[in-house]
Amino acid sequence: MGTERTRRRIPDATVSRLPVYLRILGEQADEGVESISSDRLAELAGVNAAKVRKDLSYLGSYGTRGVGYEVAYLVYQIRRELGLTHDWPVVIVGAGNLGQALAGYNGFGERGFPVAGIVDVDPAKVGTVLGGVRVRAIDELPQIVQSRRVSIGVVATPASAAQDAAELLVQAGVTSILNFAPVVLNVPAGIETRKVDLAVELQILSYHEQRRTTTAAGAAGGAPKSASA
Amino acid sequence: MGTERTRRRIPDATVSRLPVYLRILGEQADEGVESISSDRLAELAGVNAAKVRKDLSYLGSYGTRGVGYEVAYLVYQIRRELGLTHDWPVVIVGAGNLGQALAGYNGFGERGFPVAGIVDVDPAKVGTVLGGVRVRAIDELPQIVQSRRVSIGVVATPASAAQDAAELLVQAGVTSILNFAPVVLNVPAGIETRKVDLAVELQILSYHEQRRTTTAAGAAGGAPKSASA
Repeated sequence: MGTERTRRRIPDATVSRLPVYLRILGEQADEGVESISSDRLAELAGVNAAKVRKDLSYLGSYGTRGVGYEVAYLVYQIRRELGLTHDWPVVIVGAGNLGQALAGYNGFGERGFPVAGIVDVDPAKVGTVLGGVRVRAIDELPQIVQSRRVSIGVVATPASAAQDAAELLVQAGVTSILNFAPVVLNVPAGIETRKVDLAVELQILSYHEQRRTTTAAGAAGGAPKSASA
Repeated sequence: MGTERTRRRIPDATVSRLPVYLRILGEQADEGVESISSDRLAELAGVNAAKVRKDLSYLGSYGTRGVGYEVAYLVYQIRRELGLTHDWPVVIVGAGNLGQALAGYNGFGERGFPVAGIVDVDPAKVGTVLGGVRVRAIDELPQIVQSRRVSIGVVATPASAAQDAAELLVQAGVTSILNFAPVVLNVPAGIETRKVDLAVELQILSYHEQRRTTTAAGAAGGAPKSASA
């Protein structure tokens, strides 16, 4: 437990669960809860307790037997690990339906990701105000990124324009991209991308609905057998 | 290759990749491509070719050596497997910023998930028109679900109202829920849920940005060592 920590790489799966723990711990703190067991945190997060303990061990946090983890300190540790001790301004490319939706979505700013700017290629959209932010011309992207120290870009263009948008973001100096367009972006090594595709999520649900219907029609119910082939 | 297929459960990870393949195949078909190799499909989807072949084998599709897969037939097979041979109307609960954004997002309807209705508990919002759909009172939920045969509900409420919204959806007869609220929903067995949390995706990016900054400041670069503890 020295004062210097070696920063080691945390597995991606753990990184993706840390925001979930953080949100739960925040809610617990709001309710006056001061310490929490891995069992309880696991239950609220919908994962198993051994996984919670393993995940938190990457932060150097081990809890105390019979007491659990101190909520406030764990919140501090996760926020520090996730880089949430300061704001990360984001820039949105694309002021269509989706870009408008995102610019007007309070969730970004509230959670440390204020919208520093929104740009569009369409001159008709430039100058309009979305969610309190004026749409600017795509040419202004480098200036927004530099003056507001933006490292995260959001691609909210149609699929056909997304690759161009990503390249402009990278040229402007952005190093992480959240992509809402239904395409896989080609980006240089070292640029992080995450993809959100709402239709994919719905198609996964329709798979289960479809299965439910055909199973109900053809079988007498009961647990599905596991495939042996 | 009989005419009857036994429906077997496809692994969740495969189900989550099928929509990605479907989108790519649609684009290839639009460009006049008639057959595609697993290597090419893998490259476009950002996964490895062995995984593509394994995924498609669950559909009973094996391709032809030296030729690949017939695009049109593969599109048909995936759409059938995902239940996309007909529309799945969805109902949105919550007409705040996010619900408005979703109701106005063309992507839902275009991809087979038309918005059958949007409801809110707030009388001030009822009657307003969002994305062409009039906001209705929450009491009308069962009627919308039944008359429009809705099986997928979308929770777009604040976190504090999400569990109530999910329960109302389930009572109304919905069996799948797409949840945008930053909470884990408790639902009865047999109800499918998928979660989209935009802040989580951003927090994962900020982890990488944070790591980039501290690594650049403290080290001379090079590949990170794997943790040995």
